[in-house]
Amino acid sequence: MRDNFSRGEIDLNLATFHLPVVEEIKFIEERMRIQADESHPDLRAALEHLLAAGGKRVRPTVGLLIGNMLGAPLEKLINLGAAVELLHTATLVHDDLIDGSLLRRGAPTLNARWLPPATVLTGDFLFARAAKLAADTEHLPLMKSFSDTLAIIVNGELTQMFTSRGLINRDNYYKRIYAKTASLFEMTARAAAMVSPADESAAEAMRDFGYGIGMAFQIVDDILDFDGDQNAVGKPLGSDLLNGLVTLPAIYYAEAHPDDADVLSLPQGGWTNAENMTRLVEKIRAGNYAKDAALEAENYVERALTRLQSFEPCAERDALENLAKYIVGRKL
Amino acid sequence: MRDNFSRGEIDLNLATFHLPVVEEIKFIEERMRIQADESHPDLRAALEHLLAAGGKRVRPTVGLLIGNMLGAPLEKLINLGAAVELLHTATLVHDDLIDGSLLRRGAPTLNARWLPPATVLTGDFLFARAAKLAADTEHLPLMKSFSDTLAIIVNGELTQMFTSRGLINRDNYYKRIYAKTASLFEMTARAAAMVSPADESAAEAMRDFGYGIGMAFQIVDDILDFDGDQNAVGKPLGSDLLNGLVTLPAIYYAEAHPDDADVLSLPQGGWTNAENMTRLVEKIRAGNYAKDAALEAENYVERALTRLQSFEPCAERDALENLAKYIVGRKL
Repeated sequence: MRDNFSRGEIDLNLATFHLPVVEEIKFIEERMRIQADESHPDLRAALEHLLAAGGKRVRPTVGLLIGNMLGAPLEKLINLGAAVELLHTATLVHDDLIDGSLLRRGAPTLNARWLPPATVLTGDFLFARAAKLAADTEHLPLMKSFSDTLAIIVNGELTQMFTSRGLINRDNYYKRIYAKTASLFEMTARAAAMVSPADESAAEAMRDFGYGIGMAFQIVDDILDFDGDQNAVGKPLGSDLLNGLVTLPAIYYAEAHPDDADVLSLPQGGWTNAENMTRLVEKIRAGNYAKDAALEAENYVERALTRLQSFEPCAERDALENLAKYIVGRKL
Repeated sequence: MRDNFSRGEIDLNLATFHLPVVEEIKFIEERMRIQADESHPDLRAALEHLLAAGGKRVRPTVGLLIGNMLGAPLEKLINLGAAVELLHTATLVHDDLIDGSLLRRGAPTLNARWLPPATVLTGDFLFARAAKLAADTEHLPLMKSFSDTLAIIVNGELTQMFTSRGLINRDNYYKRIYAKTASLFEMTARAAAMVSPADESAAEAMRDFGYGIGMAFQIVDDILDFDGDQNAVGKPLGSDLLNGLVTLPAIYYAEAHPDDADVLSLPQGGWTNAENMTRLVEKIRAGNYAKDAALEAENYVERALTRLQSFEPCAERDALENLAKYIVGRKL
């Protein structure tokens, strides 16, 4: 089952999209690290812990590749990349606290070690430093787009919390993953073009590219909740359903089995029944639903790739293509 | 006792500092209100609740008076005022959650009605909208100063949480109230000058003015925790000590009574003993310590007022003087 959605086109261990920006990524990590230098030692330690947990720095990489392709100043791309990754980190810190998650990428979350008050404030601090870094790009439209995106992300989380649980609805799902993930990819890609000498049409193309890979990224994340390697995902499989979040594989299953008792229970709060949800996860895993969802992710990536075609071939364009394909090929 | 620190110079019910900007304050409140217009209905309701709780809008008033005095464009002052007040509101939302406070200004806090996750996210949303409003001033140095101030506030709260409890130390106290309160007054006053045609020296004078009234504001707040009208303060008297926060009246008492058993217990966590702290509050109330602290607040205000003297007399300058005196005269 685990290979249902794997296209087998790239070797994930040899993903090459980082190669043109390996050094620049280090600058971005350093820019992030120094944000707590003048702050309380425990805050510095928290930031170190969060940065050490790693992640592939996909968002900063998108910004660097697009910016380099379009001739943007490196300093602005470093500030943009650090701002975006810190914003992303801040939302994860508050998300994990809210969900009570104790593991992320197999490592303890901040709230697994700290009390909620310190965790809330650490997230707030990261928001503040992310906003500062965005301002350091000296680019007002970027700054506005950055804070708009933060509002979209948070509003999406509140909507999810108040009205999305148990809801089986494609439109709601797509809005949700846009707010949660695609909005930040979109903002990053567009902003990298905005700080370059390229014209507005380039920024629009990059916005669409970021949107497409961002939507695909979240769909694949949601598939991995059913189909991933539990150790790599770093949390129990099926946890989305257990939180009342009906993602694309589950929506496809529900559309194919509208009379399934577990499906019918969802809008009435049936997702709180762990036993039934485990059974539902197994039924979804037994079918082709993850594969169908993966095809949808691939469609988003295909549309994103068409937006790269108007740019001259170069190492960065190749890497962006590679990154887009990696997003649908990854098992995390 | 309650009148120990009242100077009796102004009738608080006739505080006139708002008068030159009554209409503009309404614009700022409206600008704040519309920030959730495109968001989830529960978020709109939360913002309404927070705005209805009121407050004197002292920070936006400072910005408006200074900006008007120096000829700043009203639109920028509205965005600045709304940004600053929303940032302030966001920090209160997270603070009340962290402290488990159920009342503020006598009204239920957000966390008294909502679960922690929704409260965390509402604070985050307000941060996002505050950052957006700051960007809407189209003034990059203002934007940077704004995000720096947010970082100072949050770092101050974390420092308070991790290292300040039970600590009897004037330097620590002044740093704490700068981070907690004066930094935002200072930023507001300086920013209002920055967006005006006035020169850098005017911005520096206003920064100092904001700093001084901000320090005084927090000292008076801390006095009110010993000496205020409990109904007006909206929380139990002595709650700072019970949270391990040794504020100026308590520091003065401790310096005068270094061998007092309750004082000696503080650094060892004695502040967790409610009975002993109630006794300590009574001892502080029985002395002149609140009055001495009020004199210190007055010193800050006096120094702030000297920074106004280089500006031509006008209705706004009068109102700023009135506001500064109100800050040390208020009983809340």
